[in-house]
Amino acid sequence: MRVLGIDPGIAIMGFGFVDKIGHRIAPVQYGSIQTEANTPTETRLVQIYEASCELLDRYKPQTIAVEKLFFNKNVTNAFSVGQARGVLLLAAAQRGIPVGEYTPMQVKQAVVGYGGAEKRQVQEMVKRLLKLSAVPKPDDVADALAVAICHAHSIVLNDRMNGVTPS
Amino acid sequence: MRVLGIDPGIAIMGFGFVDKIGHRIAPVQYGSIQTEANTPTETRLVQIYEASCELLDRYKPQTIAVEKLFFNKNVTNAFSVGQARGVLLLAAAQRGIPVGEYTPMQVKQAVVGYGGAEKRQVQEMVKRLLKLSAVPKPDDVADALAVAICHAHSIVLNDRMNGVTPS
Repeated sequence: MRVLGIDPGIAIMGFGFVDKIGHRIAPVQYGSIQTEANTPTETRLVQIYEASCELLDRYKPQTIAVEKLFFNKNVTNAFSVGQARGVLLLAAAQRGIPVGEYTPMQVKQAVVGYGGAEKRQVQEMVKRLLKLSAVPKPDDVADALAVAICHAHSIVLNDRMNGVTPS
Repeated sequence: MRVLGIDPGIAIMGFGFVDKIGHRIAPVQYGSIQTEANTPTETRLVQIYEASCELLDRYKPQTIAVEKLFFNKNVTNAFSVGQARGVLLLAAAQRGIPVGEYTPMQVKQAVVGYGGAEKRQVQEMVKRLLKLSAVPKPDDVADALAVAICHAHSIVLNDRMNGVTPS
């Protein structure tokens, strides 16, 4: 089962593909889609949309995970992140790929085992769980992998609850 | 010159097409794209995207206007509106249609002549300027027409400043 985790943003959209093989989670590809600040918003959204489509078509995830809401008090930022997230969800839905949503607390709980974990602890655990040589940069990439891991864990749990042996 | 005004939203997206003929602004078509609350967000975004594409291809606006930011303190709402706005901007950019952004104050100033005008005054003026028999409902439609009128006025002004006689 291939899972894509996304940390949406208009300047930097982090992405991380992982494969769940039995109880193991292995990294497949990760990185970020970046757009230039001095470019019209609509052009940046086209760039994000096209890059997202390309990634989905190349790595063919069976399911996608994003954070439920970026709990930022900055409305302008929420608005901007929302626009980027919108075109990603569009690309996913056009391909019939289901999207799971997790709160930041659920992600921390799944990755570190503690919902109040700090950002650095989450990044350290992402590195360790995926056997990476370093914490992926920028932070958005590590965050995307974290939500992918959270989603992969949740799928294992659902499989168990349904009495199915994880493949 | 055909102008499309948009009041973005995930549940209701108001739209209003107007034609600027000389100094007159005439309504062409207006209404709203509505999606069901108990539908997954990504499905609603596809519905909004597809309906937007259909409207753009049918009524062929030369330019589009949206409010710069929905100054709502509710972050969840800004996020949701952002997602809907994102797919609209994508549809516009894919067709090379330029998008103008106006603050709510600029829209009120252009329509009523006073940046601190109340919602009802704006709606009344939209009705009067476009010679409509009633204020368009829901509010999102009147708001979309208001931003379209604002944009049309602004284009007249730019034409004048460049020494071009408005067509």
